[in-house]
Amino acid sequence: MMKKHLILASASPRRKELLTQAGFSFQVLAANADEKIRETDPEQMVKELSRRKAGASMELWENQGNSPDQIVMLGADTIVVQDGMILGKPADREQAKAMLQKLQGNTHYVYTGVTLLWLNRQKQPQQVTFAEKTTVEFYPMTEKEILEYTATGECDDKAGAYAVQGLGMKYIRRIDGDYHNVVGLPVAAVYQAMQEWCLEF
Amino acid sequence: MMKKHLILASASPRRKELLTQAGFSFQVLAANADEKIRETDPEQMVKELSRRKAGASMELWENQGNSPDQIVMLGADTIVVQDGMILGKPADREQAKAMLQKLQGNTHYVYTGVTLLWLNRQKQPQQVTFAEKTTVEFYPMTEKEILEYTATGECDDKAGAYAVQGLGMKYIRRIDGDYHNVVGLPVAAVYQAMQEWCLEF
Repeated sequence: MMKKHLILASASPRRKELLTQAGFSFQVLAANADEKIRETDPEQMVKELSRRKAGASMELWENQGNSPDQIVMLGADTIVVQDGMILGKPADREQAKAMLQKLQGNTHYVYTGVTLLWLNRQKQPQQVTFAEKTTVEFYPMTEKEILEYTATGECDDKAGAYAVQGLGMKYIRRIDGDYHNVVGLPVAAVYQAMQEWCLEF
Repeated sequence: MMKKHLILASASPRRKELLTQAGFSFQVLAANADEKIRETDPEQMVKELSRRKAGASMELWENQGNSPDQIVMLGADTIVVQDGMILGKPADREQAKAMLQKLQGNTHYVYTGVTLLWLNRQKQPQQVTFAEKTTVEFYPMTEKEILEYTATGECDDKAGAYAVQGLGMKYIRRIDGDYHNVVGLPVAAVYQAMQEWCLEF
């Protein structure tokens, strides 16, 4: 095993909290990556964005004068997809309401792309990228419930305008797949990939 | 709608935390219920135990001189089932290891029984009981991983000897159903039942 220090290339407080809950020791270094993308296939899109995020943070890490030898950089990107439409973070409360009107009473998919980036013993860059997909089924929501929910502000900075781990919990009938993927990071798959590639953390 | 105050008939810190996260306002009153039971069907068992817990706490509530008019009592019981065997909380670390050896690399089921107990406008007792079932799939665990996990103590007071929301997160490949049911309470189903029975909280 190569003992590496894990660095999360994301400013998301949810991802940070998940890794902490799962017992990872890590630090955070989020660089701005170019998020403009032509790709429209959800899986390819999140994989590409996770690669860019990991790459941008690795560059920043090195520009700050640090050695890349002892670290694993973890990039991630999450989107919500329904009926072929990609829902990112809502621009405002009106858009949040429109998103929830689409999601309520329906089934959608959450995709998270994950990239692990590190140097092997020969100091060559290694990269593993994968995507995790989880199916999420909403209970129907009344207009009143949508209004009350968006008024709490929980929708503001979440892809699809809801938080499965927060007040949004009341409206999720079932999921099929990795739950933590819906929160923003498939922690189990990250851990298993690190084991597979012999990366200790 | 009848405006009722919710009372959680359970000392489980996980259930308390879930209801808090979901935005419920409630208080806790856990009485000792008789948990000896002949029933062996998992669904019937958790339903019966949730009824007993709700009933015992309602009795305690009244014995403390409170009126039952304005409250809804919520009882819940969770078990883990694999290959027809019911796994409750492990008696010690050896039993915890044995449980994880069974669960790792396999699929099991988590059942939670829920009872809501209240008085209607005519002051007649009303009771709704249901059970929620979630399928959980574990990644394989090595002996070393099982030892490390049980050594953390997280297994000690959990049905099936693991916490999906804690360090155990790393070993859960996927679930099918309500995630929070695996933590100990199907919060969404509780909320939806309260809406259906016109119980505001």
